[in-house]
Amino acid sequence: MTLHPSHTAPGVEIKTSPRDTMRALYKHHAGLGLALDPNRRRPEPGPRDVLIRVTKAGICGTDRHIWQWDDWAAGRIPVGIVTGHEFVGVIEEVGSAVTKYQPGLRVSGEGHVCSHTDYNARTGNAHIATDTQIIGVDRDGCFADLVVIPEENVWPVHPSIPDKVAAVFDPLGNAVHTVMAADVSAKTVLISGVGIIGLMAVTVARAAGASRIFATDINPPRLELARRLGAVEGYDARDESWIDDIRSQTRGEGVDVVLEMSGAPGAFGQSFHALRNGGVAALLGLPAKPVTFDFNSNIIFKGCTVLGINGRKIWETWYQMEALLLSGRLELDEIITHEYPIEDFEQAFATMISGDGIKVLLNVNT
Amino acid sequence: MTLHPSHTAPGVEIKTSPRDTMRALYKHHAGLGLALDPNRRRPEPGPRDVLIRVTKAGICGTDRHIWQWDDWAAGRIPVGIVTGHEFVGVIEEVGSAVTKYQPGLRVSGEGHVCSHTDYNARTGNAHIATDTQIIGVDRDGCFADLVVIPEENVWPVHPSIPDKVAAVFDPLGNAVHTVMAADVSAKTVLISGVGIIGLMAVTVARAAGASRIFATDINPPRLELARRLGAVEGYDARDESWIDDIRSQTRGEGVDVVLEMSGAPGAFGQSFHALRNGGVAALLGLPAKPVTFDFNSNIIFKGCTVLGINGRKIWETWYQMEALLLSGRLELDEIITHEYPIEDFEQAFATMISGDGIKVLLNVNT
Amino acid sequence: MTLHPSHTAPGVEIKTSPRDTMRALYKHHAGLGLALDPNRRRPEPGPRDVLIRVTKAGICGTDRHIWQWDDWAAGRIPVGIVTGHEFVGVIEEVGSAVTKYQPGLRVSGEGHVCSHTDYNARTGNAHIATDTQIIGVDRDGCFADLVVIPEENVWPVHPSIPDKVAAVFDPLGNAVHTVMAADVSAKTVLISGVGIIGLMAVTVARAAGASRIFATDINPPRLELARRLGAVEGYDARDESWIDDIRSQTRGEGVDVVLEMSGAPGAFGQSFHALRNGGVAALLGLPAKPVTFDFNSNIIFKGCTVLGINGRKIWETWYQMEALLLSGRLELDEIITHEYPIEDFEQAFATMISGDGIKVLLNVNT
Amino acid sequence: MTLHPSHTAPGVEIKTSPRDTMRALYKHHAGLGLALDPNRRRPEPGPRDVLIRVTKAGICGTDRHIWQWDDWAAGRIPVGIVTGHEFVGVIEEVGSAVTKYQPGLRVSGEGHVCSHTDYNARTGNAHIATDTQIIGVDRDGCFADLVVIPEENVWPVHPSIPDKVAAVFDPLGNAVHTVMAADVSAKTVLISGVGIIGLMAVTVARAAGASRIFATDINPPRLELARRLGAVEGYDARDESWIDDIRSQTRGEGVDVVLEMSGAPGAFGQSFHALRNGGVAALLGLPAKPVTFDFNSNIIFKGCTVLGINGRKIWETWYQMEALLLSGRLELDEIITHEYPIEDFEQAFATMISGDGIKVLLNVNT
Repeated sequence: MTLHPSHTAPGVEIKTSPRDTMRALYKHHAGLGLALDPNRRRPEPGPRDVLIRVTKAGICGTDRHIWQWDDWAAGRIPVGIVTGHEFVGVIEEVGSAVTKYQPGLRVSGEGHVCSHTDYNARTGNAHIATDTQIIGVDRDGCFADLVVIPEENVWPVHPSIPDKVAAVFDPLGNAVHTVMAADVSAKTVLISGVGIIGLMAVTVARAAGASRIFATDINPPRLELARRLGAVEGYDARDESWIDDIRSQTRGEGVDVVLEMSGAPGAFGQSFHALRNGGVAALLGLPAKPVTFDFNSNIIFKGCTVLGINGRKIWETWYQMEALLLSGRLELDEIITHEYPIEDFEQAFATMISGDGIKVLLNVNT
Repeated sequence: MTLHPSHTAPGVEIKTSPRDTMRALYKHHAGLGLALDPNRRRPEPGPRDVLIRVTKAGICGTDRHIWQWDDWAAGRIPVGIVTGHEFVGVIEEVGSAVTKYQPGLRVSGEGHVCSHTDYNARTGNAHIATDTQIIGVDRDGCFADLVVIPEENVWPVHPSIPDKVAAVFDPLGNAVHTVMAADVSAKTVLISGVGIIGLMAVTVARAAGASRIFATDINPPRLELARRLGAVEGYDARDESWIDDIRSQTRGEGVDVVLEMSGAPGAFGQSFHALRNGGVAALLGLPAKPVTFDFNSNIIFKGCTVLGINGRKIWETWYQMEALLLSGRLELDEIITHEYPIEDFEQAFATMISGDGIKVLLNVNT
Repeated sequence: MTLHPSHTAPGVEIKTSPRDTMRALYKHHAGLGLALDPNRRRPEPGPRDVLIRVTKAGICGTDRHIWQWDDWAAGRIPVGIVTGHEFVGVIEEVGSAVTKYQPGLRVSGEGHVCSHTDYNARTGNAHIATDTQIIGVDRDGCFADLVVIPEENVWPVHPSIPDKVAAVFDPLGNAVHTVMAADVSAKTVLISGVGIIGLMAVTVARAAGASRIFATDINPPRLELARRLGAVEGYDARDESWIDDIRSQTRGEGVDVVLEMSGAPGAFGQSFHALRNGGVAALLGLPAKPVTFDFNSNIIFKGCTVLGINGRKIWETWYQMEALLLSGRLELDEIITHEYPIEDFEQAFATMISGDGIKVLLNVNT
Repeated sequence: MTLHPSHTAPGVEIKTSPRDTMRALYKHHAGLGLALDPNRRRPEPGPRDVLIRVTKAGICGTDRHIWQWDDWAAGRIPVGIVTGHEFVGVIEEVGSAVTKYQPGLRVSGEGHVCSHTDYNARTGNAHIATDTQIIGVDRDGCFADLVVIPEENVWPVHPSIPDKVAAVFDPLGNAVHTVMAADVSAKTVLISGVGIIGLMAVTVARAAGASRIFATDINPPRLELARRLGAVEGYDARDESWIDDIRSQTRGEGVDVVLEMSGAPGAFGQSFHALRNGGVAALLGLPAKPVTFDFNSNIIFKGCTVLGINGRKIWETWYQMEALLLSGRLELDEIITHEYPIEDFEQAFATMISGDGIKVLLNVNT
């Protein structure tokens, strides 16, 4: 285990074997973009950690924020960090106290790392632990040849699930967690916002037994895709007559479940208006700032239940996701649209940011 | 709404006007079979009752017990009763204090009638009220031109659901109640016994989001049909190796959910053996007598949850059933196999009892 | 069934026989106050209604709004209505189609009246039916000798519960519904706002098994009373250091449950700040207008569950309330502070509005 | 933290230094009793283990089976094992990869050890993991100066909870898990069998908000104690009229919840008979052999829910237990009846087996 290769002057290739360095896409400055370091120091796993060789990685909306260096990114992301948190790979090395896994195992991993000392972490809800660090956000991530995560964050990938799908377990898990928390079986469901996770939620909700799915957005092609994935209606949210239309299809009462995935402040009021009394609203989308909200008519008089959704349950959501994938009913082909070699990361980000691509993957070791 | 022409033979109008009598299939003696009375006295609705002209009615396994006059029937059924409890029809007349419905409405109805005075009836669980009377079992039923039920037992039928399906809301509701109570969304499910309700449970569980469904029975054609309806495996229960096979497909742990619909004492132990620790078993099938059961290994050490399932929730199950039907995902065509005019009731019962038919309907006023 | 003798002064029988009129406190004009009509026309029960002679009635915060004729009251209350919705009485007469109850029965009643035709009303959640009318708000209420409610709104009072307590089943039911919805057993609970219902919630939460109760308000005597009823701490909400104090007593994480009963917009943010990740907030208090609210930090990142609470479950809450009363652990003596004859209604309202009284009763026929 | 003086007899320091040996109560042969080894080899913690110096330990019914060497013990217990699984102590040493705890911390621990690789262990239900080993049963236990458990099995003890109580977290956790799984808040509860855990369940159920508690047993002094701990009735189960008496106190319907803690086959049928339709039965007591059971009348027609209860949830039950203890409402003084130095283990076991004592403790390092 030797020093980081970038420490060494040109001409030392012989000394810096692949054992010592790796390629890594990292935040090189407090501004736009990312840079690829061909000789990033290879990370060392601690006694309870696992070192994973990354096969494929997915670009998340969070990575776009980091790329664009918006206020949130500037306030949270340490310059120099390796980014990326969605991945599939193969275990390369395990720490000395690791007991469950061996090198050679194909795995994905949960990117939320915590000390497992608080109430939630110790009772099956580590996804809302108070001391969570996220890989690619708070510590080095997976846009690299190698990534280190604790053993307890490793998820072995079922042999029948392809790498392309396993690379997006993280956002697919967001969709699954939202859908399963809201309990959609035999219920009508409104999905407000069909970005990447909203589209995933359409196919997940259908596979999980939603009786009829309605989608809203302001992007017609995405609404069209939502219909192909199983939504019975895809409404342009700018024309508010959709609320009446939904009511006319739901006994005049409204939908049983709202999955709020847009984060658009205006959508909050609309979605609650379309929800029946006693319905459930699961909130995943993050409004950019506080929302002025009528609690009386939207929640209290209605007797609604509102669920805050964060991350994915560890590991209940992952088991549910695997079960849904093995059912053969999830349709992800039109959602995972592009794959690029990691060296073409600029094109990959451009495709994702432009909206030409939906879920865009980086091929790292394939 | 006019009377069925076969009611009135020429020249008999004065003595037995359509207002006074009707056809009815009733238990004419304490023995085998039923008889058709062409001139049964027409029932009168009380102030809070509704009189319904029956369009179609379904023959239930309970009706078979009544036909065969087994011990259960001899102990429970009053001779002289009009049988039948599964139906669809049209409201003909409403009592003086009825406020919700009008004549002409197409309806089905909940056959479990109670006084709505006990805890369960007053808290949304009238299906397990202590003073329940069942139409066609404890009071006159629907194998007749007309049937009376309380207003509060009426279910208006959605216009897009055909009579053929609405006629079997009662057993379909059993299946829906069992499936929804067990919460199958994104879970593996074993359906033990694929008689009429077990087969319905296969298509219901699939529509409600079960990830993979396994079925057991000792009737190969029914197992084959279960596969066509969505079961990934249909096992002959006489070869117990199916338990190992299921375990090999469920991480070695067993299924998440068992739906016990056979009532076969031997199946109880087997099904619990195939259930994972912490799983849910919903019991609908009625064993003919007490079962010798290992609570320790089957329930206590496993940390399982066992649900007793009786009837259908009033009206939660009915709403769920409507939602599942409107989803377009329930496949009932191969389950509702035969229809006969009520006059051919002997052939209808023979078809059902022989197993040639699965769900057999009587056409009453069509 | 004869009228109460004090009703009829000598010599007035001819003009206003007991059969024809009654005393009633009603909204006599679109302005401040109420008036007592000694000769209000006696109401007639419909076929499915029950006529109840009121023994005692409670004055609610809603009645104060009606008295003060604020914007809400001016927009909702029809001038001329008999007010009041909390009561206990005795059945005087039943409609022709009533089957469950007889004259002479001591009863209270659910003031939320609906047609029982929508999803919630038909599935055990009539408290959030869409067509609810409230007695004393939308139709004549109980500040009168007699009140009419539908048979299905009648609650027979357990013999061991005194009239004084049965008269406040309505607000006590609000407290019980809130507490039970939030599931406080073995949990730490923050009650935000200890007005009438907040104080009831303290004793209810304690009886229902809350491990430790914290209360906030800006009224020191009420906080002192909250402590006597079982709160371990009563914080003046104007000093925000209470949040840190609560955290120091809850592993640094915050309380398991918040019961928001103040309706104060500022309290919303504070209470959610004091709630642990994954906690439950039940909202009963009605803010006077929309609240600017940080959904991200308060709900989404925390993974919280928010419950809108309206009325009381019919009848689940009533059964729970009876169970808690029969446990002997509810302490209501310091909450029900005053009783006045209905003729002294002006003093009764003054006592309630000044805050000298907490729950103030009107004695109607005692 | 100094060593227990009895460890070191004069002159033996060289051969058996405190670092090398300890006192331990172990199963010395395949027969009656246990033996105390004064020089048992001190256990070594692995990299992820914690070595705990035991302060106090509790004698469980399981230990009695091991002492008496009944069929169960002969089939499960390896001769030579150190017994005991209920304890409180102080961390003496931690393994090299331990991150959460330090020597000197006062702790108890969960005795169910598993690899955390199966579905339940990874989703918050490690108490029903399939590969569980129990300390004192499958691996060395806590009737010794020192015990080793994995770091992830350690529970830090709240400073305000005395050692005497912390020593019985294991059985108290059984009681808490049963009560909390059945959700007793504002409900009537029948506790069938008031042995050690049944008595604990009485005080736990009362603190957790049960409205009224009924107890049955065949031991009058225990029933008397159950009454002192909060049961409104303590019935001798041999006189079956208790079922009618309970019904008369529960609207004629039966109790909301049954906690089956006797394991007596006859009690199963009786308890279900006393349960209302739609009620919940939590089963903890282990019948010695299969029970002949009427599923139809006891579970299916009633629409009941049956919960198998095993161990304690890790760590949800422990948090609930701490919350209930901090509420000040658990009364354990009459349940923890005796304490003996570990050297007097024969007297301790005799006191426990005779029934003179209820929960009997061994003082190891106090």
